[in-house]
Amino acid sequence: MTKSSAAAKNPAGYESSLREIKPGVVAYKRARILAEASALFYEKGYESATLEMLADRLSATKPFLYTYFKGKSAILSAICEAGVKESLAALDRIEEIERRPIDKLKASLREVAEIIVARHEYLVIYQREMMNLDRADAQRILRLRHEFDLRIGKLIDDCVQDGAVTVANAAGMSIWIGGLLSWIIHCYRPGSKRSAEMVVDQAVAACLRLIAVD
Amino acid sequence: MTKSSAAAKNPAGYESSLREIKPGVVAYKRARILAEASALFYEKGYESATLEMLADRLSATKPFLYTYFKGKSAILSAICEAGVKESLAALDRIEEIERRPIDKLKASLREVAEIIVARHEYLVIYQREMMNLDRADAQRILRLRHEFDLRIGKLIDDCVQDGAVTVANAAGMSIWIGGLLSWIIHCYRPGSKRSAEMVVDQAVAACLRLIAVD
Repeated sequence: MTKSSAAAKNPAGYESSLREIKPGVVAYKRARILAEASALFYEKGYESATLEMLADRLSATKPFLYTYFKGKSAILSAICEAGVKESLAALDRIEEIERRPIDKLKASLREVAEIIVARHEYLVIYQREMMNLDRADAQRILRLRHEFDLRIGKLIDDCVQDGAVTVANAAGMSIWIGGLLSWIIHCYRPGSKRSAEMVVDQAVAACLRLIAVD
Repeated sequence: MTKSSAAAKNPAGYESSLREIKPGVVAYKRARILAEASALFYEKGYESATLEMLADRLSATKPFLYTYFKGKSAILSAICEAGVKESLAALDRIEEIERRPIDKLKASLREVAEIIVARHEYLVIYQREMMNLDRADAQRILRLRHEFDLRIGKLIDDCVQDGAVTVANAAGMSIWIGGLLSWIIHCYRPGSKRSAEMVVDQAVAACLRLIAVD
């Protein structure tokens, strides 16, 4: 039975699968816009970049952009929050997969380091253009980053409870781990001498040294 | 004998003491301009800030600014290079004072952390406005930062030779130490909850943990 014949026999099912496809299409188009906007902001800086330039790069129109984002500032906000949102999602995923606290921590550090490498451009833009964010967006992203620190602190704490590491101040150390991970964007850019794998390995090793794990 | 009577009796000496005073005055005025420019760029962003605004804040004129700097871009460059130049000068100073490699390293980390706290605003501007630097300035500052990494790597290496620490890759580790120190600007701002002393202590402790020194 083909999909369309199934749909004909079950119009309600067809409707619901359309609803299922739609968010995927929206997500895809938003992602395409963000990728192109990120390249544009990275190259020209946020203030010099215009929505016309962005529409041109996408062979689209400004109204097309407005279907997906309220404006240039909403695009910047989505770029700036991508890294931390993906990192939090990775922590959720790993929470389900790994059992031992130390394995959770190690897997989390590695996945977040990989996200930072993959989102290099987005994170450089966040660092550069932070002050161009709307105040509410800037605060929302800071809260997400704070949540990330808390969750890493909790992971370290669980390792301490488990006897796997000894750290006097897990919450304090999580902030410096955040610093090491963020430093990846200064150590790696696509095409740089050091490979992504090498930088991820070094960053994870450095984080683990901070909490005295080999 | 007053200074002026000494000068009258010794015109050559007077001349030379004037020459000695002059650089101090120039340095003072340049520092005043940089401090005010830094506050202005920090508040408004480099692109929105103008030399007129800066002159106003200093109750001075644009020609006064041009006596000390070639233009807005030269002021940005001086702000961006201040932190790393002062850090390199601190390493030179400590090289002369301390004898044991591990003491040199510890003193260096602490002094550099203190410079970063003191230069918070300058370093935030460097991070934000990097792409507005003239290409040659940007490269010069990167070379200075690279020199800093090399010198920290050398200090770690000396500690390894001395048997004080065990690090497989001193040069590699110096880059992550640079990352931890740079992270200070995200952990501390004047008036923030954590005190400058606490952040400096934590940063130095984290750096030493990286090379397994308690």
